[in-house]
Formats: sequence, structure tokens, C-alpha cells
Amino acid sequence: MSVKIPIETSARHIHISEEDFRKLFGEEAQLTYVHELSQPGQYLCKERLSIVGPRGSFENVAILGPFRKDTQIELSMTDTRKIGVPGVIRQSGDIKDTPGCTLIGPLGELKIDQGVIVAKRHIHMTPLDASRARVKDNDEVFVITESYERGLIFADVVVRVSSKFKTSMHVDTDEANAFAGQEKPCGAILKLFDGQTYSLQQWADEIQSGINR
Amino acid sequence: MSVKIPIETSARHIHISEEDFRKLFGEEAQLTYVHELSQPGQYLCKERLSIVGPRGSFENVAILGPFRKDTQIELSMTDTRKIGVPGVIRQSGDIKDTPGCTLIGPLGELKIDQGVIVAKRHIHMTPLDASRARVKDNDEVFVITESYERGLIFADVVVRVSSKFKTSMHVDTDEANAFAGQEKPCGAILKLFDGQTYSLQQWADEIQSGINR
Repeated sequence: MSVKIPIETSARHIHISEEDFRKLFGEEAQLTYVHELSQPGQYLCKERLSIVGPRGSFENVAILGPFRKDTQIELSMTDTRKIGVPGVIRQSGDIKDTPGCTLIGPLGELKIDQGVIVAKRHIHMTPLDASRARVKDNDEVFVITESYERGLIFADVVVRVSSKFKTSMHVDTDEANAFAGQEKPCGAILKLFDGQTYSLQQWADEIQSGINR
Repeated sequence: MSVKIPIETSARHIHISEEDFRKLFGEEAQLTYVHELSQPGQYLCKERLSIVGPRGSFENVAILGPFRKDTQIELSMTDTRKIGVPGVIRQSGDIKDTPGCTLIGPLGELKIDQGVIVAKRHIHMTPLDASRARVKDNDEVFVITESYERGLIFADVVVRVSSKFKTSMHVDTDEANAFAGQEKPCGAILKLFDGQTYSLQQWADEIQSGINR
């Protein structure tokens, strides 16, 4: 059985550690809940920050709660170019050796040594949906998008499975704009090569050398 | 035989009619050649314009020469959102019923009733390469991209064939950032469904109803 996967767009946002939050908003400050996000337990906060890089900045960037162990800033590739920070594609939480930036809040500024990532495209899946789609945690799959004008097949989509998740795929604003989806875009996991993982790079190389699968 | 296709990124730019150019730069003004572009006969000009929409503007936007019959403004989907103009995907030259904008040059401003498009992704091909790849003018194909981090298969790529062209695929900045290509990205035409044209939408629908091809 196949699973219809809602595709949601993540605009630039910040996950913040309690320690960094206090430095920027004060010792007594708390995250202020605004509304729930699609993933259970995640919520938009009232507090906002500016992100500053060597070549530019973004103001009024949303903080998502709850607190995380490490502060992490998620930008699109277009965003990283605009503020002059290298665009490093990573899974959430994997911030070792990523670029830093400066955050500006009401109490001043805070230099962050690492934590700026371009989120690797991914699917949050419930264990039930993962079993229906015959995928497991950390599998990389293809996802075919619905689009009336310019469809895409995303390669290198990592699947994350947890009973805490709601099934949905997350892409950044570049990826969303590149496929010009409908108002509520959806995708489906595409099983190429009999469902085996297969490198798109290797496939491209093969096509170019005249090998057709 | 397969054909390796360089993928080039088109940043926002303007093609302009001689008439509109004179209104913005003066009766005696001429396009000033800066350098050749990848397509033979096309060149970057020294002259620049501002593009203004209901919600924002871009300054210092490049004009590409030579003159065209109609003025045409090519933006990415991200760009159209930023200035508040509907993003309408079209082939170059097909500007009927597209949105307008205001252009500002040294002699003042000019309201354009139509001509703002998001260029449909396309491949310029020489007749020789088209025959090697077994495609013809106006075919729509899939293109598989080389990428070490987040590969894509572009659907709905229109092939344009002319002896005046050099073979290369043109994507906009959203599409380029969405696949995080190498410094000189390349793609290959992917023959799915035995080379028949096939709607990605239909394919997505089929996958979701449990039909696997």
C-alpha cells in the first residue's frame, strides 16, 4: 500500500537552547507559545531574533519551541547566500563543524560558533505509515511530487520514523518554489530499482555513459 | 548515445523592446555590450533597471540584449513572492495574460501591463545533440541532476531545438538552489516509460492508488 505524504515548507527559523535564550531575552524570560506546529509538541513562539552574517541579515526570524540542547538556525540555500554564510546541508541536530552567525535579541547580541544549517530534506513518519510504505528510520528514498506545472522527483530524502511524529515531508523554501506545488502539496515515495537505495549520482553517470536501466 | 547537458542558472533579468528601452534611457540610447552569454548572440548589457511590484522591488536588474519584440521580465518564484506579483510559469515569448510591473530607469518609470514570467525550465539543444538524445523541439523530458548532497529529477523540462543554440539547460535560482549542484552542474535526459512522455501528476496519482510501474 502506498502512503500519501503532505509536503510542508519550512521557512527560515531558529531552535534555541535555554542558555542562549536567557542571554538574549533575560534571566527570567520564557518561551511564549503562539500555536502548535504540524509535528506534535513543536510550537511557534512569540519571541523573534535577527540573524546576522558577513554579508547581510534577516530580521524578525521565528523561534520554534520547546528548547533544544543546542541552538540551531535553519536557512534555505538562497538565505545562506544572501547573508554570506556557507550553505551546509545537514540533518537536524547534526551541527558539528557547521558555520556560525550572530543572533540579535532585546538584550543585545550573541555570537554563535556553529549551528547554521540548510536542513536536509526529510520525511517525518509514524511507525504505521513507515511499515505501510516499507521504509525504516534513516532510509533514503525518492519522492515524486504532484504539480501541474513543474513537477520534481526529490532524491536523497531521508526518512525519520518515530511514534512522536505525524507523517509529513519537510522541504525548504527553495525546494518548495522549485516544484510550484498546489495549495496543499503532496508527494509519494517512489520505489525505483525495486525499492533499493541507489545513488542518483551513479545513475546520472551511467546514463551519460550510455547505460540504461 | 546519451548527451551530457550543462545546467546553467538564470538569475532575474530583463529582455526589453527597443521602444520601452528608449522611454527609459532616452531617444538616442543604445544597449551597451558587456559580455557574451552562453547562448550565441545573447549578451549582458551595462544598462540596469529597477523592477517594482505591489509589495517590493529589485534594483540594479540586468538587461540582456539584443532587443526583443516584447519586454519580458524573468523572475524566480521566490522573487515573485517578494515583490507581490503572481508567479506564472511560461516559456520565453509567451507573455499573453501574464502579470505586469513597473520598470524604473534613468528617465523615469514605465508601467508594463504584462511580461513578468517565471521561465519554464528548458533545454536549449543543437539539432545534432537533439538527434543523439532522440528528442525533438517542444518535447517534454525528465532531467536527472548530478549532486552529491541533494539530487533532483526535474520533470516537465521543455526541449527547444535550433541551430542557433548551444546545448545547455536553464533553471532559475530556486531550482538551482534546490539541487545544490556542483560548481559546473550537469544533467542527463532520463528516459522513463521507454522514452514516452508521461505526466508526473498521473504517475503520482497512480503510485498513491497502489499502482506501480
